[in-house]
Amino acid sequence: MPSAQPSAVSLTALLSGPDRPGLVARVATWIFERGGNILHADQHNDESENAFFQRVEWRPAAKADPAAEAAAFQDYAAKQLGMAARVALSSERPRVAIFASKAGHCFHDLILRFRAGEMRGQLACVIANHDDLAAAAKTYGLPFYNIAITPKNKAAAEKQQLKILREHGVGLVVLARYMQILSPEFLAACGCPVINIHHSFLPAFAGGKPYHQAYARGVKIVGATAHYVTPVLDEGPIIAQDVTHVSHRHNVEDLQRRGRDLEKVVLAAAVRWHLENRIIVHGNKTMVFD
Amino acid sequence: MPSAQPSAVSLTALLSGPDRPGLVARVATWIFERGGNILHADQHNDESENAFFQRVEWRPAAKADPAAEAAAFQDYAAKQLGMAARVALSSERPRVAIFASKAGHCFHDLILRFRAGEMRGQLACVIANHDDLAAAAKTYGLPFYNIAITPKNKAAAEKQQLKILREHGVGLVVLARYMQILSPEFLAACGCPVINIHHSFLPAFAGGKPYHQAYARGVKIVGATAHYVTPVLDEGPIIAQDVTHVSHRHNVEDLQRRGRDLEKVVLAAAVRWHLENRIIVHGNKTMVFD
Amino acid sequence: MPSAQPSAVSLTALLSGPDRPGLVARVATWIFERGGNILHADQHNDESENAFFQRVEWRPAAKADPAAEAAAFQDYAAKQLGMAARVALSSERPRVAIFASKAGHCFHDLILRFRAGEMRGQLACVIANHDDLAAAAKTYGLPFYNIAITPKNKAAAEKQQLKILREHGVGLVVLARYMQILSPEFLAACGCPVINIHHSFLPAFAGGKPYHQAYARGVKIVGATAHYVTPVLDEGPIIAQDVTHVSHRHNVEDLQRRGRDLEKVVLAAAVRWHLENRIIVHGNKTMVFD
Amino acid sequence: MPSAQPSAVSLTALLSGPDRPGLVARVATWIFERGGNILHADQHNDESENAFFQRVEWRPAAKADPAAEAAAFQDYAAKQLGMAARVALSSERPRVAIFASKAGHCFHDLILRFRAGEMRGQLACVIANHDDLAAAAKTYGLPFYNIAITPKNKAAAEKQQLKILREHGVGLVVLARYMQILSPEFLAACGCPVINIHHSFLPAFAGGKPYHQAYARGVKIVGATAHYVTPVLDEGPIIAQDVTHVSHRHNVEDLQRRGRDLEKVVLAAAVRWHLENRIIVHGNKTMVFD
Repeated sequence: MPSAQPSAVSLTALLSGPDRPGLVARVATWIFERGGNILHADQHNDESENAFFQRVEWRPAAKADPAAEAAAFQDYAAKQLGMAARVALSSERPRVAIFASKAGHCFHDLILRFRAGEMRGQLACVIANHDDLAAAAKTYGLPFYNIAITPKNKAAAEKQQLKILREHGVGLVVLARYMQILSPEFLAACGCPVINIHHSFLPAFAGGKPYHQAYARGVKIVGATAHYVTPVLDEGPIIAQDVTHVSHRHNVEDLQRRGRDLEKVVLAAAVRWHLENRIIVHGNKTMVFD
Repeated sequence: MPSAQPSAVSLTALLSGPDRPGLVARVATWIFERGGNILHADQHNDESENAFFQRVEWRPAAKADPAAEAAAFQDYAAKQLGMAARVALSSERPRVAIFASKAGHCFHDLILRFRAGEMRGQLACVIANHDDLAAAAKTYGLPFYNIAITPKNKAAAEKQQLKILREHGVGLVVLARYMQILSPEFLAACGCPVINIHHSFLPAFAGGKPYHQAYARGVKIVGATAHYVTPVLDEGPIIAQDVTHVSHRHNVEDLQRRGRDLEKVVLAAAVRWHLENRIIVHGNKTMVFD
Repeated sequence: MPSAQPSAVSLTALLSGPDRPGLVARVATWIFERGGNILHADQHNDESENAFFQRVEWRPAAKADPAAEAAAFQDYAAKQLGMAARVALSSERPRVAIFASKAGHCFHDLILRFRAGEMRGQLACVIANHDDLAAAAKTYGLPFYNIAITPKNKAAAEKQQLKILREHGVGLVVLARYMQILSPEFLAACGCPVINIHHSFLPAFAGGKPYHQAYARGVKIVGATAHYVTPVLDEGPIIAQDVTHVSHRHNVEDLQRRGRDLEKVVLAAAVRWHLENRIIVHGNKTMVFD
Repeated sequence: MPSAQPSAVSLTALLSGPDRPGLVARVATWIFERGGNILHADQHNDESENAFFQRVEWRPAAKADPAAEAAAFQDYAAKQLGMAARVALSSERPRVAIFASKAGHCFHDLILRFRAGEMRGQLACVIANHDDLAAAAKTYGLPFYNIAITPKNKAAAEKQQLKILREHGVGLVVLARYMQILSPEFLAACGCPVINIHHSFLPAFAGGKPYHQAYARGVKIVGATAHYVTPVLDEGPIIAQDVTHVSHRHNVEDLQRRGRDLEKVVLAAAVRWHLENRIIVHGNKTMVFD
């Protein structure tokens, strides 16, 4: 990926709304007539719902102000096309908070990917309910907040978490094997998407201890699922899934070890796609324009 | 796979029972002292249950009678080792009945594999509840029985099915997308294992219309599961599973089309393993010594 | 897939040529202004070559003549956009010839898929250099031509093959494990694309006996590759590939058995994509708009 | 994995040699008669070479000295069975040196796995030919040696590397995307196995810049291969391979990014299997008893 020089900023719009003839033409023509050049365009028509979805990425005219173009497009989409549009500049780097507990595999993996330049975002802080990862966070130069959660203090603890998110201007929360359930109040208040990694192939084995459940059922495949968090546990829109074959020779610890590799890759893909504005959520499903 | 010449018959034992020291040595020594030569030996210790499982395949002494050796081993295992043992001769070719409805993909796939020599069994007959596949069965030279099933006639229809299985000396029933539920009475009476292909990654999407369920949930992977049939629907011991990635671009018909390829391969693997005596069922789980 | 009713014919254009601003807009606008409605549009810009590729599928206006629209678009693309365009009607069903030798797995698999309605084409005939599949072809109701090939008669045999292709109006040749090399003269004369399945993960193990080569090298994965045939053996543009894991336990026969399942699925995908006009060949590479 | 308490030490033998009747029985009986209990036993007969290979893991009698048992077994195998045997104690933790250049993904991944307890070894040091990873190595508390390699100083530099390996008592060298070719002299002198990760599906794309080669050939799958290093570049015995699907949409950078995830997982599996004594090398092939 090229580094985002000022003159090379591109815009990415995610459009959704009722389908009608000419949408592709009108979007493309609007961009073309303002001197823009489409880099990628990908659309999806859901014929059963008569709905239209599009991800379009373009480079605006050299002398145009990208932010102004983004606003103009959003306005055009809403008023002329009747479409909801979210437009992002390729130079944007949303601030990301990682929530963790004790397990470090997704935590390390995500951070190393941000540092390697794989992610279009910047890490803001780590919030945990144990201090196991405090030293590692410090090594990475990341603010680390250890907020223990108990049934009694949960409401207060979540308020503290929300305050930290606001202070850091966080635009995305990633639950990197964070072993607490976020309350509906937290989700309503946090003001940004939350991505979780569940260590099973949802909807199989929702809830706690999925590898134990998988072992008990004797499945021949285990998986991992990254999804947006909604108030209903493990029921949010699925972003990415992957699986690996297992056999009777694998005990629960083996499933966990093999699962960790899946969890890392699946969560990283979901976060990357989100940060690259590749995901449209519609109802309880996602479209990933990868 | 070598053709089974009289002099090249091998024996395969599937052993299971409580673990104790020396089992591997005693089994191997028994075979060795009678002039046999072990071709493959694969074992599994379930430490949590202190249980021992083994698949051992050996070529008995040239002048030994394979059937007598099989009986002697079974006796030895039971009396001296306290183990349940099932011993099969490589020359055995169990007779297999295919149950089908309208869909032909698993039906054709299985039959072509038997004809290509991939399966250590022989096809006995096809039992269906529709006549869509009658002509194809005739082309393959297979007896075809069309027994319609209605809520009213189900008990009588199953009796008819059982009679056919007995007449053909069937040792394995394969449900090749047979869209009826076998009653507990049928399962108790049929006297042989029944393998089913379920068109989802169980335990996700058990029950009817799994591809519709998968589409509605927005999963990014669909799968197929072959399992032994038990009285509890879609809950029997899983033998084989496989999956394929899907995206928002795939509608229900696409999932079905992609799923058909999975169903064929997964069902064929399960049937092949069963016929090669590679599967031990323990509780609600399988060990597959492949 | 919907059945192609006269009123529901759609057009699919595959465009390629030098990139320049506004191509997406101009194509979409042309379609829109003539009353068409875009169903799918997928494009690819190769920035290193400044090349633009697009697959666009649209439903023309109800009263328009689809064939006339196709011709008009092709003309527009060439004259106004400077692009090569191939336009197909969704009602077209190209005639397909299967070339085979002795192995029947891809032969049966392809034919059953055509009969199941998975393929947008119609089978015209089978040409073989052995008679092993003659009876099966007859069962399927397909003309079968057995033309033995020897070093001496090859030129004459290929002339015979070409004559048959012409008589049947064949628009696609599929080599379903046909174990002869087509001469450059045949390829130049046959006037339609030829798709082959090679039983390895090309470019590894090109040439003969790839499973033996794979076994000798001790690889842990074997694969299959479908590609368009060019005069250089096993070097044509790759359309589809898939692989499966193997271990030291698998001998050459096992690799062949597992490979057969790959070959079937990979070849079928390539043929389906070709018949659905999803493939653009550029240089020695393909773009598959799936 | 259980922690290795003195009383819970197990022994793992890797046996290879000419096959003859009774080997399984004799090995198992030897262990049983000395009060040992077999935990796992896995064998492989290569019928084409009449060769026998076995991995057997057992817990010796509680009062036995594990090291003495290991020596006794090795002696028994050599003198009584005519087999080469390598016996390891589960308490052994070979010292591992990582060789790296600039890329950090395999470097970090391996180290984090050692720290998470996934590997039965201990990290000894990092040897690099660039200083990009110096700070990270320091953070991990690992000695870091930066030895630049030029055509002129290569022989001297390798001597320096060998000296470091000796000083650290290294028993395994892992090339974690080390971009230099080790000389035959180094390999002969280093006295321990060397595992490399090659960023392609070998034997396709051996040599330099495999992702560029893969892109140029237009393959639909890219892979990674872990193998033991031999004097012939990229020709050593393959331990593990994995692949991922790609399309025309992926440029070389995308292939590299996707490849990094493969490289990490494949290299880690190979190192883990080696440290758990699961690999027998025979000729230019491996058996992995996983």
